[in-house]
Amino acid sequence: MKIARYSYQGAIAFGIVDDDELVVLTSDPMFAGFDTTGDRVALADVKLLAPVIPRSKIVAVVNSSPEPAFVLRPNTAVVGPGDAIVLPAASDQVEVDGQLAIIIGKIAKNVSAADAASRVFGYTVATVVTAADLAERSVTRAGAFDTFLPLGPIIETDFDAAATPLRGLINDEEFQAVEFGDDDATPTEETVAALVAFASSVFTLLPGDVILAGPMDTAAAVVDNDTVSMSIAGIGTLVNPVVRPA
Amino acid sequence: MKIARYSYQGAIAFGIVDDDELVVLTSDPMFAGFDTTGDRVALADVKLLAPVIPRSKIVAVVNSSPEPAFVLRPNTAVVGPGDAIVLPAASDQVEVDGQLAIIIGKIAKNVSAADAASRVFGYTVATVVTAADLAERSVTRAGAFDTFLPLGPIIETDFDAAATPLRGLINDEEFQAVEFGDDDATPTEETVAALVAFASSVFTLLPGDVILAGPMDTAAAVVDNDTVSMSIAGIGTLVNPVVRPA
Repeated sequence: MKIARYSYQGAIAFGIVDDDELVVLTSDPMFAGFDTTGDRVALADVKLLAPVIPRSKIVAVVNSSPEPAFVLRPNTAVVGPGDAIVLPAASDQVEVDGQLAIIIGKIAKNVSAADAASRVFGYTVATVVTAADLAERSVTRAGAFDTFLPLGPIIETDFDAAATPLRGLINDEEFQAVEFGDDDATPTEETVAALVAFASSVFTLLPGDVILAGPMDTAAAVVDNDTVSMSIAGIGTLVNPVVRPA
Repeated sequence: MKIARYSYQGAIAFGIVDDDELVVLTSDPMFAGFDTTGDRVALADVKLLAPVIPRSKIVAVVNSSPEPAFVLRPNTAVVGPGDAIVLPAASDQVEVDGQLAIIIGKIAKNVSAADAASRVFGYTVATVVTAADLAERSVTRAGAFDTFLPLGPIIETDFDAAATPLRGLINDEEFQAVEFGDDDATPTEETVAALVAFASSVFTLLPGDVILAGPMDTAAAVVDNDTVSMSIAGIGTLVNPVVRPA
């Protein structure tokens, strides 16, 4: 099932994607279940938004061996499909990396890898943006700028990471083409479960928390006026323009 | 003005401290102002809670020279007065450091140091807990465990960092006694303003965000059954027991 968060006629709502329409839900399905209002809207008529706004944590893995080292990203970095990635004045080298975003749906504390999947609400595409030239000084700051975490276009609740292709384009040029499970840097069902279990050993995971399964070691630099397109088969394509303010 | 968040007869509310009573507020004053319900409750009858639960960011400075390097702490680490600091199984060396917690009250993006004070709602005491033996591998993880950020006992909206003493006790032994402005590691009005301005140059600060003015370079180790008491003159004393689960 594909869940969209969107704005339509000035209001924000959630819906289930049904071909080229959205079946409108009464509220956020992560908390309120899948009751429908009886309305439908055309996908073409809505603006898709980031499908989740984390209220607690965004966990970004920065090194996955021997155990995950991570930083936290702020929820103020999250933007949605079509929103601009704004290059900060403080950086001259901004890079993007497509990653799988794991969205937690239930409280999880010290869960085993075997139980981890039961705490996952779904998955979406993340374009993980980093000011690479600031990372040596502070990895957290390098990834914390506003607009540095596009998420979308929708949440897929039934997703199989086995042999799923992820493909990244900057403008029309492919810079990232991996298949999940292809090598140690790409997610598999097992690494996703291990990551959720590890995170839950540090802190209580809450509904809406996001864990980024990366890095893929395939980041590429972007500049003003670029367009980044990140696709995961079975989820969709997340497209964001890159802007450097005058 | 001293603002408390508390539970009383099963409900959570906010109040203004008036001697040994609380003047009950209609809602969170950060968002709703200072309208009162007309009720008063005795301070002795309530359980004080962490005076703020950040919805977006807790910024922990880990190195302040030449410009601040920071990590983010998760809001799941926040506990209140009297709550236990729980030692995680993964660590054998947990340390505490008293710090001044700056609580943001208004949206701030790219504010100057001169404007920073206008975005601050108030100040409280933070007992910043760190699993020191895990910090080399991941500073973020070392500070991210549940219960690793006691805050309280109240928020002081009118606080002057000039020459204010901060005093930390483990059990009855003083391990931390600094006066703000005494050396480069302690906060002053200027460093607080510079810190808010710097943070706002990275991300949009939101009401409820917390910036920890530290480290003070005075951390000390705690073990099971210790009690940590952290005082800042003009704000109050934050007391938390330390527990290692069996």
